Amino acid sequence: MAVAFEGVLADRSAWILENCSMAMTMDAIGTRSAVTILREALYGTTRFDDFVRRTKTTDAIVSARLKQLTELGLLSRQPYQEPGQRTRYEYVLTDKGRDLLPVLFAMMQFGNKHLQPDGGPLRLVERGTGDPVRIVALSASGKELQLEDIAIEANGTWAPNRP
Amino acid sequence: MAVAFEGVLADRSAWILENCSMAMTMDAIGTRSAVTILREALYGTTRFDDFVRRTKTTDAIVSARLKQLTELGLLSRQPYQEPGQRTRYEYVLTDKGRDLLPVLFAMMQFGNKHLQPDGGPLRLVERGTGDPVRIVALSASGKELQLEDIAIEANGTWAPNRP
Repeated sequence: MAVAFEGVLADRSAWILENCSMAMTMDAIGTRSAVTILREALYGTTRFDDFVRRTKTTDAIVSARLKQLTELGLLSRQPYQEPGQRTRYEYVLTDKGRDLLPVLFAMMQFGNKHLQPDGGPLRLVERGTGDPVRIVALSASGKELQLEDIAIEANGTWAPNRP
Repeated sequence: MAVAFEGVLADRSAWILENCSMAMTMDAIGTRSAVTILREALYGTTRFDDFVRRTKTTDAIVSARLKQLTELGLLSRQPYQEPGQRTRYEYVLTDKGRDLLPVLFAMMQFGNKHLQPDGGPLRLVERGTGDPVRIVALSASGKELQLEDIAIEANGTWAPNRP
């Protein structure tokens, strides 16, 4: 069972996908170190030394990734200064970066369920109630959808490429 | 603004994350070629030649990735035979593989919104109604949650590592 294709996409042999958004997202953030740094940003880490310590990554890699993620507009670089110290910078998740929440937490959900012997170290809950939180596909009417309930249409502006 | 930490995790300086499920998911499927092959499996592709053609990847890479994803239990390898041909194998998404749906579609959603000039080639809709589908964090009571509404607790079986 798979996703359904509708409209001009219904004949799968008649088109091939270019400019795949999943592949573009992987190109942008698809390394282990980028994901762990984005995880820490989501968890409230802002300072270089904390990123290094909490991701157990080298200074050089953290530095390169912070630069890359800032250039991508996922983190915002902001100056701060402590008394008697030079100006330093901290890195805060932007609105664009926050839009990675479903990506990152869906990866956590998958890892917790399938890659950890005991369900993983952390679990997502609703603040206030403590009820479990899941990352799901949701319809406009608020219904949780399974693979069989989902279809894919061509964006109006896109003409499918011939194979 | 970031996720809240509760219980034994409330003091962020007192623990450090090991065995991160996001990092483990990246280790398992975190390459562009693995993601595009899983995308095709989600879209109903099952045969080697179709994976090669539709992901525009070399035979060698597709072959290696199909082997890897089968070993991980994300794809199931099943024999088929066409008249007068030798037995071949096709690759079908397993239940475990289907659990990657939120990961893959969340990447599509992010890419469509932020990495494509015109919203990307494909859009997710509800089968039957054609209404838009989004990947979201959902509470047990069916409420869509934002970053500020989510907290993280320690899994009962996990003792936080000292930094």
